[in-house]
Amino acid sequence: MADAPGDIEALIALMARLPGLGPRSARRAVLHLLRKRSGVMEPLALALAKVSASARDCRICGNISDHDTCPICASAKRETGVLCVVEDVSDLWAMERAGGFTGRYHVLGGTLSALESIGPEALRIPHLVARVGQEGVREVILALNATVEGQTTAHYIAEALAPTGVQLSALAQGVPMGGELDYLDDGTISAALAARRRL
Amino acid sequence: MADAPGDIEALIALMARLPGLGPRSARRAVLHLLRKRSGVMEPLALALAKVSASARDCRICGNISDHDTCPICASAKRETGVLCVVEDVSDLWAMERAGGFTGRYHVLGGTLSALESIGPEALRIPHLVARVGQEGVREVILALNATVEGQTTAHYIAEALAPTGVQLSALAQGVPMGGELDYLDDGTISAALAARRRL
Repeated sequence: MADAPGDIEALIALMARLPGLGPRSARRAVLHLLRKRSGVMEPLALALAKVSASARDCRICGNISDHDTCPICASAKRETGVLCVVEDVSDLWAMERAGGFTGRYHVLGGTLSALESIGPEALRIPHLVARVGQEGVREVILALNATVEGQTTAHYIAEALAPTGVQLSALAQGVPMGGELDYLDDGTISAALAARRRL
Repeated sequence: MADAPGDIEALIALMARLPGLGPRSARRAVLHLLRKRSGVMEPLALALAKVSASARDCRICGNISDHDTCPICASAKRETGVLCVVEDVSDLWAMERAGGFTGRYHVLGGTLSALESIGPEALRIPHLVARVGQEGVREVILALNATVEGQTTAHYIAEALAPTGVQLSALAQGVPMGGELDYLDDGTISAALAARRRL
């Protein structure tokens, strides 16, 4: 016995593939959309179609925008001498939200993984090495996640960039803002202790 | 400083209005879509546009489908003598998933609420009374939620239908399948005890 019509079931199945939504919450979300057709569903359908039609990867840094060259790479105000290497577009957005970085980015799109056979080419590491030479980069900041995969990838990139002589740096590790020692993992505390600064 | 381009931020803001998604998870969902543009985002944009353009309320029962008359009301196989009154389209879908009901529905679209000034007209209760007369209905099953609002609304409908002489019934209350007494609320146990059946 059918419950929802085919098109609606198809929409629920697609929504259920989004992270954070399972089959039940996708059904609930679609019902919400169906109840608020003019107020929510139509604007969402339009916005999604618009982004779906226009979104593309920046051919220089890998950021996602509605141009072949993203606003950051296209901006004359962003320093060309400093490149910040991030794993993912979400990390680039997080860096931009935090503010304070005035250089340009290079988005890897993941981390090296022998298991999933993600090699340096898939992460555009040769492209990064080429950019360092072509754009006259002085400093490469490795802003990869503080995970095993992130740090392995950072290590590989450091070796790949060694011949260029570019200055390499990494985000500081330590106690996060508002962090309470009692709730921090041992690795963070050890790293913060090793990197302690004189007052 | 901008993080994501305007269209993408607009999409994130719309996604964040879905139940079950907050600003952070909406951002994550949109990033997932942006990464899987051809595999997930385009099909979702198409499915959403299709449902958004075609979905409408059934003019008879209030179910949502892509026709002015929903497949259940249009089906010659569904009994005309039995009407099941539900609060919401999601409840109708749940009844259909459970199977076993061969009659037709009447979707109220909510419950009576003095606070939110939702009166009988907003819930199409006069329309329900008219249907009972016009469609030769023998039995009205009140399948409203076992909440204070649902039961208040059920009580109001029962009074409104009393002059028609139609037989009224309600879903049985009791221990749910797989339910353990230790985890059930007192109200459910009391209701199950009061409605105990002879073996």
